[in-house]
Amino acid sequence: MAASSESFVSVTPYRIIYGDTDQMGVAYYANYLRWFEVGRTEMLRQIGLPYACIEERGLRFPVIEVTCRYYKPARYDETILIETRLSSLGRAILTFGYRLSRESDGVLLADGATKHASVEAGGRVVRISRELHAALARAVAPPPGPR
Amino acid sequence: MAASSESFVSVTPYRIIYGDTDQMGVAYYANYLRWFEVGRTEMLRQIGLPYACIEERGLRFPVIEVTCRYYKPARYDETILIETRLSSLGRAILTFGYRLSRESDGVLLADGATKHASVEAGGRVVRISRELHAALARAVAPPPGPR
Amino acid sequence: MAASSESFVSVTPYRIIYGDTDQMGVAYYANYLRWFEVGRTEMLRQIGLPYACIEERGLRFPVIEVTCRYYKPARYDETILIETRLSSLGRAILTFGYRLSRESDGVLLADGATKHASVEAGGRVVRISRELHAALARAVAPPPGPR
Amino acid sequence: MAASSESFVSVTPYRIIYGDTDQMGVAYYANYLRWFEVGRTEMLRQIGLPYACIEERGLRFPVIEVTCRYYKPARYDETILIETRLSSLGRAILTFGYRLSRESDGVLLADGATKHASVEAGGRVVRISRELHAALARAVAPPPGPR
Repeated sequence: MAASSESFVSVTPYRIIYGDTDQMGVAYYANYLRWFEVGRTEMLRQIGLPYACIEERGLRFPVIEVTCRYYKPARYDETILIETRLSSLGRAILTFGYRLSRESDGVLLADGATKHASVEAGGRVVRISRELHAALARAVAPPPGPR
Repeated sequence: MAASSESFVSVTPYRIIYGDTDQMGVAYYANYLRWFEVGRTEMLRQIGLPYACIEERGLRFPVIEVTCRYYKPARYDETILIETRLSSLGRAILTFGYRLSRESDGVLLADGATKHASVEAGGRVVRISRELHAALARAVAPPPGPR
Repeated sequence: MAASSESFVSVTPYRIIYGDTDQMGVAYYANYLRWFEVGRTEMLRQIGLPYACIEERGLRFPVIEVTCRYYKPARYDETILIETRLSSLGRAILTFGYRLSRESDGVLLADGATKHASVEAGGRVVRISRELHAALARAVAPPPGPR
Repeated sequence: MAASSESFVSVTPYRIIYGDTDQMGVAYYANYLRWFEVGRTEMLRQIGLPYACIEERGLRFPVIEVTCRYYKPARYDETILIETRLSSLGRAILTFGYRLSRESDGVLLADGATKHASVEAGGRVVRISRELHAALARAVAPPPGPR
C-alpha cells in the first residue's frame, strides 16, 4: 500500500433498504450515522486494525460528537458510497470524516464527522497505546481542501 | 392488585415516530418486535421482576422464536397500546403473547408471540430459579379464547 | 440461468455492525427482519423483478405475517449469508423462506418466513397481475425436505 | 400558558429499551437522533402545531444538519428526559436545540441541534407560510446562556 494519503480513503458501498426509509420516501436521518459506522469499520479493517481487535486489546472508541449535513435525499434501493478517512488523531481523541455519494451519478448526498475518545473497558479515557497510535498515524488523511 | 389473571395483562402506550415509518407511509414491520420488547419489559416490571434484575441474577431470556401477524397498518403519530401477557411458562422456556391496538378506536393492528429460553450469561440453557419461577407462575395468563 | 429450482435460491452476504448488536453482545432480534428484507429484495432483483419496479406498477407486497426462529446468536463483525427462496405463490399471497448462516463456518443461525399480500397503492388486496405472476411462478422454490 | 420563553421548552420522557443498546452496554449513538425527533414532535404538538398538521398543509421540515455531543452514556431501562426548544427561526430554516438528561439524577447525557429546511412535498425549499411562521415565532426560545 503506497504511503500517499489517497491510500487511506476507504470507500464502501451500501444499498438502501425499505427499513431505512421513512414516510417522506427518503432515508431517515438517523440511519446516516449507521452508515458512518459501516464506513469507519471498513476503513479500520483496511488499515489492518479491525475494531474487534481494538476491543480485544481492552480499548473502546465511543463517539463523543457527531455532525452530519444532508444535501440530497438518499432513496430506496439506491447504492451509496461511503467514503471514510481518519481526519485527525490525538493522544486519546480521533476524528473520522465521511462523504456519502450516490453511486449511479456521484452526487454528494451528505458529509459529516465523528469524534471519538479512547476509553478502557470501564469507561475511563486512556491514551491510545503506542503501537496502535503508530498504525493509526500512518492512515491520517486530512480532509481535502476547497474544490 | 387483584388475584385474577386479568391483573397480569399489562398495557403500555407507544406513539409511532417518523423513524418508525417507511416509504409505504406505515410503520416498518421489524419495529413491531421493538414494541413487543417494550410490552414485555413493562409487564415484567409490573409483576415486580424488572428485566434488569433478572440480568443481575445472571440470567438472560433471549428470544428463540417470534411470530407476528399484521392486520392493519400503524401510522405516524398514532398511539398504539401494547397488551402483553405471559402465556406459558416451562422450566427453562417462557412465552409472551402480544396484542397491538390503536388507542383512538381500539382496532387490533397486530398480534404475536415471543418464545424465550432461560440462559446463564455464558449462553447455556438453565432452569429458571425456584424463586423466579414462582413469581412468574403467578403472572401466567393464558391467551383469551375465541371471540 | 438453469431452470432448476436451485437457480432461484438467492444468497446475499451482510456484515453485522455495532448498531445491530445489543448489550447481550449479539444481534438484536428485530434486526433479523431487516435481513429478511435484504434477502427478498436481492432475490426479486435476481429474478428480474426489482421491488422498485413492482411499486412502479402500482403494487405493494406488505408483510402480513412473519416467523423467525433463532438458533445461534449472530455477533458483531461476522458476515452472515441470507438465503432466500419464494416458497409459495397464490393469487394475491406470496411467501418467502429464509435461512441465515454464518459465512465463516456455515452454521445455521436462524430461519424464518414472511407472508405477503398483494395490495394496490390504496391498500386494497388485489390479484397479482398475470405477467408478474408468471415471472414469480418460475422462481417458486419449495422449502427443502428433511435433512 | 404564560408568555415567557420558559413555557416553550418541552420535556418528554423516554425509557431506553434493549433494542437501543449495543454491545458496549450503552445506547447506540444513532438512536439519540430518534430521541431528538421524539422531542421536537412533542414540542410542536405542545405549541399547537402537530407535525402531521404541517404535513397536511403540504410542508415538510427535513433535517439538513445535525450535531450531537455525547457526555455520559445512556443505559438500558433508564428514563431520559428530552428537553427541546426552537432555538432559531428564519424564513425557510428553523433550528431546534436538545438536552438529554437522566431522569433519576438530572445528569446531562447529551445535547445537540437539528437544522431544518421548509420544503413543499416535491422537495423545493419554500418560505414558511405567514400563519405558521407566526405560531412558531411565539415559541422561539434561544439557548440558555453559560451556566
